[in-house]
Amino acid sequence: MELSNSPERAWLSWTFKGLPGRGEAVALDEIGAQSWNVLDQDVMLPVAVIYNSAIEHNRRWMTAFTTAASVRLCPHGKTTMSPQLLEMQIADGAWGITAATVAHVRTYRRFGIDRIILANQLIGKQNIAYIFDELSCNLGLDFYCLVDSIAAIELLETAATHLQFGGRLQVLLELGIAGGRTGLRQDDVALQLAERIAKSPLLLLRGIEAFEGIVQETACDENTVRGLLERCARLAEACAAAGFFAGVPILSAGGSGFFDLACSIMSRAAISPNFDVVLRSGCYLVHDSRLYQELSRRLAARSPDMMPPGPGLKPALELWACVHSMPEPGRAIVSIGKRDTSFDAGLPRPIKWCRSRPDGPKALVGHEVVRLDDQHAYLDIPAESPLVVGDLVGFGISHPCTTFDRWPALYLVDDGLTVTGAVQTFF
Amino acid sequence: MELSNSPERAWLSWTFKGLPGRGEAVALDEIGAQSWNVLDQDVMLPVAVIYNSAIEHNRRWMTAFTTAASVRLCPHGKTTMSPQLLEMQIADGAWGITAATVAHVRTYRRFGIDRIILANQLIGKQNIAYIFDELSCNLGLDFYCLVDSIAAIELLETAATHLQFGGRLQVLLELGIAGGRTGLRQDDVALQLAERIAKSPLLLLRGIEAFEGIVQETACDENTVRGLLERCARLAEACAAAGFFAGVPILSAGGSGFFDLACSIMSRAAISPNFDVVLRSGCYLVHDSRLYQELSRRLAARSPDMMPPGPGLKPALELWACVHSMPEPGRAIVSIGKRDTSFDAGLPRPIKWCRSRPDGPKALVGHEVVRLDDQHAYLDIPAESPLVVGDLVGFGISHPCTTFDRWPALYLVDDGLTVTGAVQTFF
Repeated sequence: MELSNSPERAWLSWTFKGLPGRGEAVALDEIGAQSWNVLDQDVMLPVAVIYNSAIEHNRRWMTAFTTAASVRLCPHGKTTMSPQLLEMQIADGAWGITAATVAHVRTYRRFGIDRIILANQLIGKQNIAYIFDELSCNLGLDFYCLVDSIAAIELLETAATHLQFGGRLQVLLELGIAGGRTGLRQDDVALQLAERIAKSPLLLLRGIEAFEGIVQETACDENTVRGLLERCARLAEACAAAGFFAGVPILSAGGSGFFDLACSIMSRAAISPNFDVVLRSGCYLVHDSRLYQELSRRLAARSPDMMPPGPGLKPALELWACVHSMPEPGRAIVSIGKRDTSFDAGLPRPIKWCRSRPDGPKALVGHEVVRLDDQHAYLDIPAESPLVVGDLVGFGISHPCTTFDRWPALYLVDDGLTVTGAVQTFF
Repeated sequence: MELSNSPERAWLSWTFKGLPGRGEAVALDEIGAQSWNVLDQDVMLPVAVIYNSAIEHNRRWMTAFTTAASVRLCPHGKTTMSPQLLEMQIADGAWGITAATVAHVRTYRRFGIDRIILANQLIGKQNIAYIFDELSCNLGLDFYCLVDSIAAIELLETAATHLQFGGRLQVLLELGIAGGRTGLRQDDVALQLAERIAKSPLLLLRGIEAFEGIVQETACDENTVRGLLERCARLAEACAAAGFFAGVPILSAGGSGFFDLACSIMSRAAISPNFDVVLRSGCYLVHDSRLYQELSRRLAARSPDMMPPGPGLKPALELWACVHSMPEPGRAIVSIGKRDTSFDAGLPRPIKWCRSRPDGPKALVGHEVVRLDDQHAYLDIPAESPLVVGDLVGFGISHPCTTFDRWPALYLVDDGLTVTGAVQTFF
């Protein structure tokens, strides 16, 4: 698959808060030629930056991992919603791109992506109508969505009749866990639903799916995850034996914390002659400095034999902002807030500071964000903090998805924080 | 002040997730002519909607309040960052618009807004350069920012020399509270800083300011707020007596929870011959169904004599989404998540449901959001819940600021949820 970007040239303008000056439009492909440096404050702060070196490393890492594991990668694009970053993943051989919503699918189609898993039920009049329309008009589109109830199947069939959709809809049957999100809890019910799908004139049962990533907040994560993935494998075996699948069956899972287990457990399914394991991990590309760093550490400890040689995934995303005020001992107020950073899986971490570019960024230890307002961070700082008003602080983040959606664009930087380009996002 | 919008026609396209169909661009001024109805699912769900009737009511309410209190309103535009909504506030007689960041100021300038309070310190090379540039090029621009430290003043003066800025910068001295955000904690230090500002060749001391809205999470809010506002009044009196002010002094405060106290306390300052009280409340226009509803209830109870006749502020913003799955008893999964709704001041509240437009929306009781993922809400539902897969659920939200920034556009609707137009946002 090749990404055929829109022929129009992309521009950044005043609608991007990080652009310096009066906000006159700059072509995306000329951003690098500006020679802006973040430490020189050539850009309007706060900004979000992505280190080229970390992205390149993470790309090589994941390619090595999936190659060794003999699995396909259909990375979740919802993390970044960025055509430039999705293009990198496709250049690395991604089998397709995963979407969370039909609006994402529509956006991907604008980017020219032609194999998409909607890792969600297809529900809602306009959502269904758009997908049927897109499938009717683009016979090369390879689209999959999830199903987890007879009610959803009936809504789809009714809509297909009403809209006179003559095509077939490829679906993955979704398994879930008690207390979890979507997905069938009972395997016998799931098998009945698989049969129902196999008999539907509209649907094609293409595989079995789960999202094990919802399990990441409890102590006994791993066994719950293993159990769910094993259930997927057993259900796929039963469906294969019963002849319910159309085509080569797909077994798919993979948030960004347990994709080792998704590979090892799903790959052992006893389905002949063959089947595909499709990972949907999306956060690997940018990684983070907290949630996924910890999940990744556990993953490496759990599955050392599966790890590519060398270092693991690296955090590629940082936020840089100014110290605005040091209004009382032990406190600095810095110019990033809920509008700039994720805070749903841990607050951002102040890890670097800089007063002037020649001095370079230095490690910042003992500083902690304790509260965020819409546009301000409250930092607890030690008595010996080097910070003064006007200094720059660099933050690592936790959970890239909810940081990306706060930025219409992010700068690409080299290790010295010189801007080499930018990526856009479309949320 | 009149808002001179960009002469280009505004369009909604595939970059707006709520647009139906393939995302072909529709002119903003033709959205109403489409006769879309949310309950008929003519738009792609989820969507954010604003009730015209509630907005109109809130506009009248705030106009009545500020007129009776004889205060000026400079509403915080960061809540919505929407030119169409800011235009309403300016049409209602807003004295200016408040910004949280220099990027907001730049955006407002694109909207044609010519009186702006940056309710923040002006820090950072590009931020300062932009403001100096804009002031130099637009002599009609009436711009104010905050100061709370000698360090910030020195950064501004150094930048002015370096950039050869020959103008004057109007500043408000900021007071704060111990354990709070920005702003001076000590009144004697503040008075010294006022004198320093008065003597600066760059700065003009135009007033005294505080943001009392950071105090809303503790039990003894009200006394803390009163104390801060009284300190502002006393400091302004001292600065006036010392001749530190340039022009008619401004006393400014006012988040959206205590603007009654800001009016009553600041208006009693003993400054002759005259001074202006400038409220910066922004959330009144859209209001909400949780945080500000409660703050507003307390405000009305505290200051009954200041309330305009009739009902108080009404929640204007709702989110509508589909039930995607009912995977186990007591649980519904609905298609809104952290990408669609605020969750920093309470989770959204499922308050309405609808199966088909002729039946109309009905009240939904006993349902509660207990978890949000990026694109999913987990609802605890009672055994007698009317919901089935495919039904629509309407949510009230808590904290409009962090809901607006998740939507490039929001639909304007009549009370029957027919779309009459849309407003854009620029975050």
